[in-house]
Amino acid sequence: MQNDLLLRALLREPVERTPVWMMRQAGRYLPEYRATRERAGSFLKLCMTPELACEVTLQPLARYPLDAAILFSDILTIPHALGLGLQFETGEGPRIERPVRNRADVERLRVPDPATDLRYVIDAVSLIRRELRGRVPLIGFAGSPWTVGTYVVEGGSTREFSKIKAMMFSEPATLHRLLDLLATSTTQYLNAQIEAGAQAVMIFDTWGGVLAPAQYREFSLHYMADIVAGLTREREGRRVPVILFTKGGGAWLPEMAKTGCDALGVDWTTELADARRSVNDQVALQGNLDPTCLYASPARIREEVGRVLASYGRGHGHVFNLGHGIHPQIPPEHAGAMIAAVHELSPPYHAG
Amino acid sequence: MQNDLLLRALLREPVERTPVWMMRQAGRYLPEYRATRERAGSFLKLCMTPELACEVTLQPLARYPLDAAILFSDILTIPHALGLGLQFETGEGPRIERPVRNRADVERLRVPDPATDLRYVIDAVSLIRRELRGRVPLIGFAGSPWTVGTYVVEGGSTREFSKIKAMMFSEPATLHRLLDLLATSTTQYLNAQIEAGAQAVMIFDTWGGVLAPAQYREFSLHYMADIVAGLTREREGRRVPVILFTKGGGAWLPEMAKTGCDALGVDWTTELADARRSVNDQVALQGNLDPTCLYASPARIREEVGRVLASYGRGHGHVFNLGHGIHPQIPPEHAGAMIAAVHELSPPYHAG
Repeated sequence: MQNDLLLRALLREPVERTPVWMMRQAGRYLPEYRATRERAGSFLKLCMTPELACEVTLQPLARYPLDAAILFSDILTIPHALGLGLQFETGEGPRIERPVRNRADVERLRVPDPATDLRYVIDAVSLIRRELRGRVPLIGFAGSPWTVGTYVVEGGSTREFSKIKAMMFSEPATLHRLLDLLATSTTQYLNAQIEAGAQAVMIFDTWGGVLAPAQYREFSLHYMADIVAGLTREREGRRVPVILFTKGGGAWLPEMAKTGCDALGVDWTTELADARRSVNDQVALQGNLDPTCLYASPARIREEVGRVLASYGRGHGHVFNLGHGIHPQIPPEHAGAMIAAVHELSPPYHAG
Repeated sequence: MQNDLLLRALLREPVERTPVWMMRQAGRYLPEYRATRERAGSFLKLCMTPELACEVTLQPLARYPLDAAILFSDILTIPHALGLGLQFETGEGPRIERPVRNRADVERLRVPDPATDLRYVIDAVSLIRRELRGRVPLIGFAGSPWTVGTYVVEGGSTREFSKIKAMMFSEPATLHRLLDLLATSTTQYLNAQIEAGAQAVMIFDTWGGVLAPAQYREFSLHYMADIVAGLTREREGRRVPVILFTKGGGAWLPEMAKTGCDALGVDWTTELADARRSVNDQVALQGNLDPTCLYASPARIREEVGRVLASYGRGHGHVFNLGHGIHPQIPPEHAGAMIAAVHELSPPYHAG
């Protein structure tokens, strides 16, 4: 591999500078992405056509000196493979046609076989890995069982989480059965991605932060820990690092670190200095510039990049990233300014 | 006053049981509220007609043994008084017709005079206070400058906060000028509510939790502290307690406690036991049942009420509440079950 900074940083090994990538780096803020998306006809077609998924995965790497590629896909591929009927409506977000609302709905579900039901993702991973030709590592990913479960139960995006939480309070055994099935499915899915060439994997728990602490442990963290325990951790003679990210989970970083994962994503509501202290350098940290900072001028962005690097401080184990996905309205040159600033400002933190 | 449990608990004075009220207790989950709202013709008319605002404020007290009334109003009365053009569109939430986007927009604004520009609120407070006849205390309220500012700059509700954060990163002096004007307006507005009879006041910082820690301090907490410093704290021979509530602000409770407020609202993502420890019993705590718990059965609700009471533990300084507003779909008898459980289960925590 020509550039393995990301893998080394995720394992807290020495690096010359802080590696950098962006959540949603292959996305709508790039005109070349919008062109491919247009050609695909729909978001789902784009996800389901390996050649097009590969094309958009590589687009940001052609533009910026990024240290990782991340598979272009969606966290709702598993509900799609479960036959729940996934639709993406323009401006509306995802919709699940047959949401899971009771025990009978859960009992009808069968763990999908990645080799057949999610073949298009696995083919995309193989293709991207081949096309990358060892330039940078490829990150595979999936949603956390709780987060995917919110869509599966609510039937789409929600601000209230009323249906899944009603199930959590009233029918916890039903919800546990669903989450367990999602965890098994996700473990097999991520292992298939690793088998096909993903060199690190990340679990996105976008909605774990809406839970009370005890419920976070029981309904979200528990299932992420199950997945971590079931993942292939060594492949092609290298360790495959696992990153967990709970948005709004700053208070729970120490517990997350105990799952056996290698790194934790941190959003901007927690200072990296505090996060690092709280996990006692037992795992690497990834983050955490507020994505809205990229609306500011390149000079201002550079200043904030400096602040994030200084907050993590000296030593290894930091992967620079946004605290959440890049917004579609961001001018591409502002993303470039962030990446350039990491290249320029981070080496002193790793010197001597 | 016949029942001053709330005021005593907010000042950490001895009480026989934990007082209880609910955020949005006068709201859409009550059929009698929906009937009055219908008669008013619009949400804004309901807010702006003192007799109707008084009527809905008192409705939950007729139904449940609550320990407080809270003024029925909206956090956007100040933008309305600033002449920014407030509309509530059905199912869409609030819309500000003339959002504030630059320095010139801010410089055009003048601090409203509560006695004239917000007369309808002040009249509602006087009327409610009279109609309450000393049964329970009346809580006045306002939004925090940051939270009200998000609507003023974005022009309505947002999930991204892109416009106000762009201003924060690129034109911080402009945003500070706006927040300063909102803080001055809010101080005068809350003092007018206290003058008219509000016996406690609460500042709702619904959106402070979307900020990074340093920005929370600079753009939200700072202005809440300014307001606290400017409030009338003694009236009718009693202290007027001040409650601050930042949703998602669990990590910042110790700093919030240093503003000079009497009590802090806590959402359900922080355990009350941890919150109490973190503020070292220097302020009272209000909260924190997840509002979605009220979708569960009365027996299950009772169990969770017990858990919240146990988390706060023995001793005074706890006001039972939800961690956020009650949802419109909650069956009224479930709210009743919560309130009854607090009456039934809390006395042992205050005994001896």
